[in-house]
Amino acid sequence: MTIKDIAAHCGVSTSTVSRVINDHPDVSPVVREMVNKAIEELHFIPNNSARTLVSSRSTAIGVVSRGVNNPFFSSVIRVLGREINDLGYTMVLQQISTQADEIRAAAALEREKKLLGVIFLGGRFNYTKEELEPLTVPFVCCTYTNTFGDLAEDEYSSVSIRDEDEAAKAVRYLIHMGHRRIAMILDDPADFSIGQLRFQGYKKALAEAGIGYDPALAVFTGDYAMDAAYDYTLRLIDSGADFTAILAISDTVAIAAIKALTDRGLRVPEDCSVIAIDGMELSAYTVPTLTTLRQPAEEMARQSADMLIGIIEGTGSHRHVLMETTLREGESVTAVPA
Amino acid sequence: MTIKDIAAHCGVSTSTVSRVINDHPDVSPVVREMVNKAIEELHFIPNNSARTLVSSRSTAIGVVSRGVNNPFFSSVIRVLGREINDLGYTMVLQQISTQADEIRAAAALEREKKLLGVIFLGGRFNYTKEELEPLTVPFVCCTYTNTFGDLAEDEYSSVSIRDEDEAAKAVRYLIHMGHRRIAMILDDPADFSIGQLRFQGYKKALAEAGIGYDPALAVFTGDYAMDAAYDYTLRLIDSGADFTAILAISDTVAIAAIKALTDRGLRVPEDCSVIAIDGMELSAYTVPTLTTLRQPAEEMARQSADMLIGIIEGTGSHRHVLMETTLREGESVTAVPA
Repeated sequence: MTIKDIAAHCGVSTSTVSRVINDHPDVSPVVREMVNKAIEELHFIPNNSARTLVSSRSTAIGVVSRGVNNPFFSSVIRVLGREINDLGYTMVLQQISTQADEIRAAAALEREKKLLGVIFLGGRFNYTKEELEPLTVPFVCCTYTNTFGDLAEDEYSSVSIRDEDEAAKAVRYLIHMGHRRIAMILDDPADFSIGQLRFQGYKKALAEAGIGYDPALAVFTGDYAMDAAYDYTLRLIDSGADFTAILAISDTVAIAAIKALTDRGLRVPEDCSVIAIDGMELSAYTVPTLTTLRQPAEEMARQSADMLIGIIEGTGSHRHVLMETTLREGESVTAVPA
Repeated sequence: MTIKDIAAHCGVSTSTVSRVINDHPDVSPVVREMVNKAIEELHFIPNNSARTLVSSRSTAIGVVSRGVNNPFFSSVIRVLGREINDLGYTMVLQQISTQADEIRAAAALEREKKLLGVIFLGGRFNYTKEELEPLTVPFVCCTYTNTFGDLAEDEYSSVSIRDEDEAAKAVRYLIHMGHRRIAMILDDPADFSIGQLRFQGYKKALAEAGIGYDPALAVFTGDYAMDAAYDYTLRLIDSGADFTAILAISDTVAIAAIKALTDRGLRVPEDCSVIAIDGMELSAYTVPTLTTLRQPAEEMARQSADMLIGIIEGTGSHRHVLMETTLREGESVTAVPA
């Protein structure tokens, strides 16, 4: 009798059974009752450690998180850790800088820790088959996908948002509010990563609305660091550039930009609107509350872990899941006075 | 030839050698050159994975982090992970809620993952010998210690700040700025944990200054959640209580409190000063910048990992390290007009 038998009996996934056993909130009362009833009737004794004790094989799943200071990833890592553990595996976490090579880090980790699989949390979108050769275990790209690379769809899994479309959505929202002079603050417009895709979305939405792209309003900070975002926003203001709104690539970049605007005596949103993409909890408590496109961070984490473990256990195959953001309206965007 | 031989040759610790090998910034140029020279002369080939490959014994070190939404812990976890990995071990991270029992979690983890030792990141200060029995491996309390418990000093290690003194320091600073009606927002004044100690410090500093303790100004939110901190601050304001300053138990609680003050039309710091204890990066970019006592988070993490690994390897014994905060002056505290 295993967790799989209970899952089959109830017609739910093993992760749902696991969540009931581990008393997690995100299960409906009906499902919870059904699973608990099955556990009782089938005399199942949940034992998280059974897998580890009966076999000497590794239970290690690597999580390579790129961008060590990204607070958005904290909630993703928390859910990954919980989910991996609940399903009887062990999360081996490695946090690397945005400049580091996540494939090299994962390949080294695979050898050192005998990984069964890897979840990349953030990374480049242009992997080649050749680059991935050192990695011999299945992997999932969490929060991004291989847009620019040459991997076949059945060689990896991904859980991501449509970065280009989401950035375009944010710019369209600003345009809808009457803005036409819109700046964007991002790390790098040609990094084959989130920066590049969101920058494409920014330019696409401007073009759609017949607004010419003005290079003076595109700010490239090199990374996601708050100090760089703050400094570059000051420079943008001091350059005398004319803008009424900013799209920031992340919540933390937006928070630093708002600080710079405030320190130069500009009011947000009266003098400049600010929108971002992320939706971390903290930015709901900043002054002003940040208007942001909220990514479903926890759901992305849960699906990434479930997919990878399905592949490891031979019950699933590589898939590509696209998720949507939702607009969390705060106080940092206002309409341009007519 | 191992990393220990290089360390002995140079008269430095193994962790220093490890930091040089892994190219970390926190080594002086002189030491770096000396270590690199020894590596060259002794023909040492650094191999992080050697330990894992030559033996089949576990390399797992548990990190049980209590308070899943505490962004202050993110930088601690990052440094713990790096340090543990650099010294040839594997971090097994488990994040639990502030309500969960960290000893039970660690004991289960010890059995499941064959841990060599545990670092508790946050926890109660009142462990008894009996409670710790299920845990058979050495452990370090990181960011707290066993103030109220009955553990002998040589039964565990700790790296902490003097929570009572630090809270008193924050209150003294507010008093120095002319404040006498000082509120405190904390989780729980009798939790045998950080809340209780900092609350004692708050009352101690008030008493020293001849200011009576007013229960109407003590706000207990039950946990560190930002939504609770926001709601309770609104209630404090709406109660009509008379106060000119707030000590918040953490940066995130302070950020939520500032939001509540702002939403009720009160200006920070003109109408109410706010100080906290933590010093996370993000609160340096809030409006206003938070004035806070900065904990040496990364140094606390590094020492915790080094101490535990020293004990595991038999080169160190249990110790208790006390660290100091430093005042990071922001814009959230001002003097009371004379």
